Amino acid sequence: MFQIFDVVSDPTLTADRVTRLRTVLARRRLDGYIVPRTDEHQGEYIPADAERLCWLTGFSGSAGTAIVTTNQAALFVDGRYTVQARGEVDSGQIDVVAMATQKAEDWLVETLAEKSKIGFDPKLFTVAQIERLQHRLGEKQIVLKPVRSNLIDDLWGKDRPLPPDGAILPHPIRYAGEPAAEKISVIADELKAGGDDAVVLTSRESIAWLTNLRGSDVAHTPVFSAFVIVHQKAKTELFVDTAKLTCEAREEISAKVKITAYEKFWERLKALKEMGKSVRVDPNTASYEIVRLLGGAKRVVRHPDPCVEPRSIKNSVEISGARAAQERDGTAVVRFLAWLDENAGDGTIDEITAATQLEAFRQETNKLKEISFDTISGSGPNGAIVHYRVNSKTNRMLRPGELFLIDSGAQYCDGTTDITRTLAIGKPSEEMRRCFTLVLKGHIAIATARFPKGTRGRDLDPFARRALWQAGYDYDHGTGHGVGSYLSVHEGPVSISRMGAAFLRPGMIISNEPGCYREGHYGIRIENLVLVNELETPEDGDREMMSFETLTLAPIARRLIKKGLLSGEERDWIDSYHARVAETLQPLLDKATKAWLKKACAPL
Amino acid sequence: MFQIFDVVSDPTLTADRVTRLRTVLARRRLDGYIVPRTDEHQGEYIPADAERLCWLTGFSGSAGTAIVTTNQAALFVDGRYTVQARGEVDSGQIDVVAMATQKAEDWLVETLAEKSKIGFDPKLFTVAQIERLQHRLGEKQIVLKPVRSNLIDDLWGKDRPLPPDGAILPHPIRYAGEPAAEKISVIADELKAGGDDAVVLTSRESIAWLTNLRGSDVAHTPVFSAFVIVHQKAKTELFVDTAKLTCEAREEISAKVKITAYEKFWERLKALKEMGKSVRVDPNTASYEIVRLLGGAKRVVRHPDPCVEPRSIKNSVEISGARAAQERDGTAVVRFLAWLDENAGDGTIDEITAATQLEAFRQETNKLKEISFDTISGSGPNGAIVHYRVNSKTNRMLRPGELFLIDSGAQYCDGTTDITRTLAIGKPSEEMRRCFTLVLKGHIAIATARFPKGTRGRDLDPFARRALWQAGYDYDHGTGHGVGSYLSVHEGPVSISRMGAAFLRPGMIISNEPGCYREGHYGIRIENLVLVNELETPEDGDREMMSFETLTLAPIARRLIKKGLLSGEERDWIDSYHARVAETLQPLLDKATKAWLKKACAPL
Repeated sequence: MFQIFDVVSDPTLTADRVTRLRTVLARRRLDGYIVPRTDEHQGEYIPADAERLCWLTGFSGSAGTAIVTTNQAALFVDGRYTVQARGEVDSGQIDVVAMATQKAEDWLVETLAEKSKIGFDPKLFTVAQIERLQHRLGEKQIVLKPVRSNLIDDLWGKDRPLPPDGAILPHPIRYAGEPAAEKISVIADELKAGGDDAVVLTSRESIAWLTNLRGSDVAHTPVFSAFVIVHQKAKTELFVDTAKLTCEAREEISAKVKITAYEKFWERLKALKEMGKSVRVDPNTASYEIVRLLGGAKRVVRHPDPCVEPRSIKNSVEISGARAAQERDGTAVVRFLAWLDENAGDGTIDEITAATQLEAFRQETNKLKEISFDTISGSGPNGAIVHYRVNSKTNRMLRPGELFLIDSGAQYCDGTTDITRTLAIGKPSEEMRRCFTLVLKGHIAIATARFPKGTRGRDLDPFARRALWQAGYDYDHGTGHGVGSYLSVHEGPVSISRMGAAFLRPGMIISNEPGCYREGHYGIRIENLVLVNELETPEDGDREMMSFETLTLAPIARRLIKKGLLSGEERDWIDSYHARVAETLQPLLDKATKAWLKKACAPL
Repeated sequence: MFQIFDVVSDPTLTADRVTRLRTVLARRRLDGYIVPRTDEHQGEYIPADAERLCWLTGFSGSAGTAIVTTNQAALFVDGRYTVQARGEVDSGQIDVVAMATQKAEDWLVETLAEKSKIGFDPKLFTVAQIERLQHRLGEKQIVLKPVRSNLIDDLWGKDRPLPPDGAILPHPIRYAGEPAAEKISVIADELKAGGDDAVVLTSRESIAWLTNLRGSDVAHTPVFSAFVIVHQKAKTELFVDTAKLTCEAREEISAKVKITAYEKFWERLKALKEMGKSVRVDPNTASYEIVRLLGGAKRVVRHPDPCVEPRSIKNSVEISGARAAQERDGTAVVRFLAWLDENAGDGTIDEITAATQLEAFRQETNKLKEISFDTISGSGPNGAIVHYRVNSKTNRMLRPGELFLIDSGAQYCDGTTDITRTLAIGKPSEEMRRCFTLVLKGHIAIATARFPKGTRGRDLDPFARRALWQAGYDYDHGTGHGVGSYLSVHEGPVSISRMGAAFLRPGMIISNEPGCYREGHYGIRIENLVLVNELETPEDGDREMMSFETLTLAPIARRLIKKGLLSGEERDWIDSYHARVAETLQPLLDKATKAWLKKACAPL
């Protein structure tokens, strides 16, 4: 089982921990301390031993910042997490603040006296974050003081999990499609072109992609903790816990990469500074400490992580891998949908059972490496909580007459999947069917969109919302995020959202997941992954165009579709998509499931 | 007649003028001089005596920059104007450079030696422009030298037009809807809230809006040259050529505004500096000279022009004025369309005759103050030139079997109009009808759009393009621009375009004008003005929504519509729009035109 459903946070511990932290603050003559959720590698996912924010506050979400001062404490979270945070933290000890209403820096300026001293761990904040903070706090001469040893770690003690020690394995060329050596030389050429000596990489996803290695340091994403320095002339250096490296991994990379102990990274930066090298860092991922060791903000060359764009553009091997992974995942999802259809009607299945059963079907493909994120399994009102994560306390029956939303994904060597289906348990209301069909119209508008070169994600986002807007609805999340290749299920730079400024490029894999949420009643979301393709310009057109190919293969609940609300083209899309799903998956399914799929994919 | 069709530019004069300018450069020990198209007030439109760029280069477009060095000269224009510029300038003397391929600053860095001295008139460049330039040129230690007296003015001499002396009249409250005193006090309150003493206004449109005055200093936009300083405590100061002020204008404003001679503005800035006042300027409209006199970039408070947003949100009086103006304008346009239908079929009408006739019909409303811009009257291939302006040389017959695109507008006291219709002369081809219908689908998608509070112009732009994208087409201009109330036909801050970051707000009037252009063949554009309205949330919706009300009233060429390509909703929109046009305008038309309109507005 790759997921647990226990209640992880225990607010009763907070009081003591906050008090102990305050004692340390007093001893160190600090007026406050900032605890972020991220670790040295600034990703969305972190290992258990880096869950400092959760240890201190009890908040288990994937983004947030706590500030503890001598007499106050606040946890700052975004819109996704305000409800969850209020449920998880001890409100007597810590105020939960929605960042939309007050930013941490504004709170600090308001709360603290002039010339106060705030401590922070310089390895856990990006240089960009600290510069923004300093700029704001400067107004009140509040000082941000880097504290080398992490104060939470000092307090955590025995109950702190050990650092992960999972093996690091090669991601073979038959999956990666491009040798690490080639990827590295491209980056070295960029350095040459820019006249810089080296670039420091800190992102786990970037390093896994560049080296064609995979690990298991964080849940659900096959990455490992490491740093990389690519040099224009010298050999690329990989700083990693060498004990984790399997012989296969060493063999795979030793030719082109110098393997060094993880801890040595920091001295190496000093050395580069002393040699007067011009070194590139991404100010939004490199920590304040890295920049300090390289000689400070004025010395480093600011440049976006060079792996982000090429990683997002899948090569032909990764693309056929993705297709294979989707077929495999489709069979598991279809078996799950058939099972649910058969068993959920009488209200005897709960959210956890459903999530567990789906994972079991994926397990039975014998190719499942991991799930790609904690399954969102929400029945009735729980489906309206966009980032709902079921646990033994919130677990709820799938009741007849209600909707059930399940958003899940898998990690296979050849690809990462992410799919959401919304299902009717028993008989759905007309209103449910109408909202579902409006969401479906948005989903189809993206799936069928054609768009010229130079289109940004934000230029397509409105297509997914139009039908909902016309009816007075909207949803408060993006329409799509990039997806990695046996890597992170949330991958930059591209997104289909109001703010998505990155250009869409052929080879990118993106989710298409509009939704509609009726608080206290139900949530609807329909998600497939799509691939950006080049499109021969239609004879009569005059522009270079692109289009999407839907990769995900699983039926969309026909019982929830109000046929009358669909245009002819929309009906055609559904029917041909379902025909393709049936045709592709039937050969891979047992007789009973095959029969169920045939019905589920029948023309509208 | 408010428009002339003469060829304004004479490239044969350029050689001599550039040579004379170079003599001056030598005498002043300058290696180059920059000549912008804008004047002291940084608007799109300028008086004849400020047409320095045209005088020097022969280029008559509305945007561009010339740079003359000791041995080279270049004119930098954007995509709209490259073709026109190449036609207008003496290529032997001046290279025309498309800004997309090379920016002026990059050209300077490439062309000039280190430590070169480039002169510029500090009153004609915004502080933001100069800062950008300095930043780039600094790399090569090229110095930007403010030259107080304008070198072109020194050379221009006798043939230079006199400054405009048109009367300044009140824009009565029955049209303006809000007294100037109220507008001013709002701005004074903003100053108080921000703790600043004063704000400097330089934009003609802002000053006309704020003071409820109108003038005639530039063609087609009823503005006048002036500066304004609004003080938090003291009386607002208007710096203007007092001879232009009619008694009515004086009466209207003298109670709340101190009237001062135009020239006195510059000393006043010095005085404010000496008094140590904190003064707001908009870095994108205030000139380098203004900021210098106020004590330099570090002293001034950077703040967007406070008139821009409130001006764009029309009050109820301006809105009913706009409706009345549109009815009036509609009768003129309908008479024109009927006349064209009757007379153009045999190929005896040319572009100039058409434009002239349309203006004549507008004149016959007895309410026409001006046209709102030079009519774009393009037959066949000329219609494909987005910013085409007909003159005696390019004038072309409206030929049977071709399309004719006419984009025009009027200035009435109660409102500014802007409308484009594309018409079939004789029998159109199937391809023409298909493209026209695709453009129409985009136009309807905007006209019928509903969208939540917080929507930006760029979030709607894709709706106008989708049908074209699906067929492999696009257009290289925005979908819509803000329109003033008896003011500029191009008004910020809102636009419906890829870059339109401003929020749409109820009361804004915007154009809706998608197009399709087949170079060498024809151009298609369909433009109406729309008003942003609040929308009661549909019972079943849960968001505060907005929608558009189409203000423009004139039939859309039914013969160019391929009914089969329209959805049911799209057909309904056309039919109900035409029904509204007929119902509203018929009572105002003569018998013959009424009959024509009935046919033109018949259901599809």
